[in-house]
Amino acid sequence: MGRVVVEVMPKPEILDPQGKAVNGALPRLGYTGITQVRQGKRFEITVDGPVTDEVLAQVRSAAETLLSNPVIEDVVKVEADDTADATDTETA
Amino acid sequence: MGRVVVEVMPKPEILDPQGKAVNGALPRLGYTGITQVRQGKRFEITVDGPVTDEVLAQVRSAAETLLSNPVIEDVVKVEADDTADATDTETA
Repeated sequence: MGRVVVEVMPKPEILDPQGKAVNGALPRLGYTGITQVRQGKRFEITVDGPVTDEVLAQVRSAAETLLSNPVIEDVVKVEADDTADATDTETA
Repeated sequence: MGRVVVEVMPKPEILDPQGKAVNGALPRLGYTGITQVRQGKRFEITVDGPVTDEVLAQVRSAAETLLSNPVIEDVVKVEADDTADATDTETA
C-alpha cells in the first residue's frame, strides 16, 4: 500500500482568519519575529497498491475537486509519501 | 524574509471524522482504490530575516504548544520552505 500527501492552502488574496488568529496569539506567548501565518490543510491518502503515475493523476483530480475549493484554495502539493509506507510501495 | 512550513496530523490512534467523511465521499465521486484518508493542518509561517536554526527551534516550540494539541496531534514536519521566499532568505 502506498501513500500520497496532498496539501491545500488558501489563495494569497483570500483572507485567512485561522492564520490571523494564530499570528495574533504568538506574540502573547512570547514568540516574536513572526510576521504572517497562513493555515491550510494536509491530507494523507492511503491507496491500494503502489503509487503509480495513474494513481497520482487520480488523486490530483480528487484534490482539485473534492479536497479543495478552487475558488478560494490552491492545491500546493500532490506527492507520493516516501517515508512511512515506502517499503510496502516498492515491494507491491 | 524566510518561510517555515509546519505540518500537524492527528495521531494514528485518534479518530479523524473529517478524513472519514472525505474517504466516504470519494467512491461516490468515482474515485476508487483509496483505502484511507486522514486530514491534518499545514501552516506557512513567515518570519523576519533568514530561517536560522534558532528560528526553526522557536517555530518548533510554537508548533508543539500553540499550533498542535499534543494529546491528539503530532507535529510531523517543521522545515524551512525553500520554494517561494528562498532567494530573499539567502540574501537576508
